[in-house]
Amino acid sequence: MRVLGIDPGLRNLGWGVIEAAGSRLTHVANGIIHSEGVDLAVRLLSLYRALSAVVEAHGPAAVAVEQTFVNKDGAATLKLGQARGIALLVPAQAGLPVGEYAPNAVKKAVVGVGHADKGQIAQMVRYLLPGVALAGPDAADALAVAICHAHHLQSAGRLAAALRGAA
Amino acid sequence: MRVLGIDPGLRNLGWGVIEAAGSRLTHVANGIIHSEGVDLAVRLLSLYRALSAVVEAHGPAAVAVEQTFVNKDGAATLKLGQARGIALLVPAQAGLPVGEYAPNAVKKAVVGVGHADKGQIAQMVRYLLPGVALAGPDAADALAVAICHAHHLQSAGRLAAALRGAA
Repeated sequence: MRVLGIDPGLRNLGWGVIEAAGSRLTHVANGIIHSEGVDLAVRLLSLYRALSAVVEAHGPAAVAVEQTFVNKDGAATLKLGQARGIALLVPAQAGLPVGEYAPNAVKKAVVGVGHADKGQIAQMVRYLLPGVALAGPDAADALAVAICHAHHLQSAGRLAAALRGAA
Repeated sequence: MRVLGIDPGLRNLGWGVIEAAGSRLTHVANGIIHSEGVDLAVRLLSLYRALSAVVEAHGPAAVAVEQTFVNKDGAATLKLGQARGIALLVPAQAGLPVGEYAPNAVKKAVVGVGHADKGQIAQMVRYLLPGVALAGPDAADALAVAICHAHHLQSAGRLAAALRGAA
């Protein structure tokens, strides 16, 4: 099962695709979509097109998006929100279910603690996906979101199987 | 020239279309797109589809979106940002230029002062577009954005004509 993770951002949107077969995870691809310029609508359109191309190229069965940290800077939160709207729309348009995880949940799933820094996340992603070449910190975060979602789907599957067995 | 104005929101997205012929403005249509439910990605997809249908049905030549007020509530700003991302994407995807106006600029263009309340805006929209039936306050705000954009385009056109005359 292919899982796409997305770390949304207007300037840099990280994405990462993994293959999950039982508890075995392998890296498929990762990258960062950049958008620059003064026209916000045009930037959002370029994010939309590039992310649609990623979904089409890698055909994920499940998608997860990091829940943007809401800080005290309203303008920055608004920008992130706009990019996040695109990150949620693209998989929904492809008929894919979209999971959402808070940054702390992602860190806990990947590193084991909720307060890991960017460097620790990248280190753990490299350990869990041997041989991966990371496009950058945002791509590492996106792969971490995909790993978190794969764990979650696997646990949910095990629970469903156990419930079927108990019935 | 048809102008579409949008007042973005996740629960209620207001839209309004006017026809601008010189300084003469006439009402074409207005409405509110509702989205409810727990799945954010599905809600954004329904906004996207409904707004795309409005653009297709009314074929505007220009679009303007209200610049969301950034308040102190980060979670609310994030929600608005996500809906606003869709509101900017849809016209960009149709190849339409998108103007952005701060709420105060819209109020000043329509009511004459920057601190008008919702009731005053609706009243002025009814005065400027005689016979209009407003779908609600968000639709009145969207028509106000369209009126503001029409004024702006007209001034810019007059300026360009004057510069051509002076050359």
